[in-house]
Amino acid sequence: MLYKAIKAIIITEKLISKGVCDIIDASGATGYTIIPVGGKGRHTHASASNATVVDDFTHVKIEVIVREKALAQEITDNIIEKYFHDYSGISYLEEVQIHRPEKFILE
Amino acid sequence: MLYKAIKAIIITEKLISKGVCDIIDASGATGYTIIPVGGKGRHTHASASNATVVDDFTHVKIEVIVREKALAQEITDNIIEKYFHDYSGISYLEEVQIHRPEKFILE
Amino acid sequence: MLYKAIKAIIITEKLISKGVCDIIDASGATGYTIIPVGGKGRHTHASASNATVVDDFTHVKIEVIVREKALAQEITDNIIEKYFHDYSGISYLEEVQIHRPEKFILE
Repeated sequence: MLYKAIKAIIITEKLISKGVCDIIDASGATGYTIIPVGGKGRHTHASASNATVVDDFTHVKIEVIVREKALAQEITDNIIEKYFHDYSGISYLEEVQIHRPEKFILE
Repeated sequence: MLYKAIKAIIITEKLISKGVCDIIDASGATGYTIIPVGGKGRHTHASASNATVVDDFTHVKIEVIVREKALAQEITDNIIEKYFHDYSGISYLEEVQIHRPEKFILE
Repeated sequence: MLYKAIKAIIITEKLISKGVCDIIDASGATGYTIIPVGGKGRHTHASASNATVVDDFTHVKIEVIVREKALAQEITDNIIEKYFHDYSGISYLEEVQIHRPEKFILE
């Protein structure tokens, strides 16, 4: 049995990962995943000259899955509002299909 | 030309990654991708106090793309049945559009 | 407010990551994310015997988000044409919903 859910993805500077995760924790989401990433673009400060140095993982991709799209948007809105004026970052949502929905709802 | 396919994602403890990959191999899928991750939640044993230590990648995100949703579900069902009573983990599916579908079917 | 966009994903050998990123840069995309990965399959040269050595990240997953599906296909077509005759790799697309669309369009 599969259930619709929403994955929010935030790609930003590693140095604010704790603060981003605190916002996710406070939202009522049951967890998140943190992935080390490199890259180039509006979510990094990398210049063209070093952007493809793939071993330099100064950024993180943080993923959180929730049942309700409204909650995913609330999380990303709060992160954008608190951090993305001063730090580089992007955020987006993806539709996913989850097993075991109880894993994604706080008791 | 693009073709519909399904990506199964499993996030679990690194120590069972070999067993999870064995299930994927046995299913007839042509391959998988393993990504080191950290995080917090129902897929980890991390306590709140160390959950955001982003350099501590004790978990893995394993992704496998197959043509048929039934196969994606069979793979995740087998992993849940074999491992997720004793180990922490989550699984979910995403719809993707692939190039070169022959890459995703065993000859 | 959310906007539809397309994420192109390329999984290939680390040694051609610079060339792949050059194609993305030349396309007009505003950025990309690079993630270290391991695994097994048509996108790797790993043999069955060492495929699940999860600490051996010899491959990369490169993600790029653009507004237009045609641009995502152009990027992946160019990468397939230039590299995937000689190097192992797979590519696929996912639909995503972005915040702040101006982040994904070059001025």
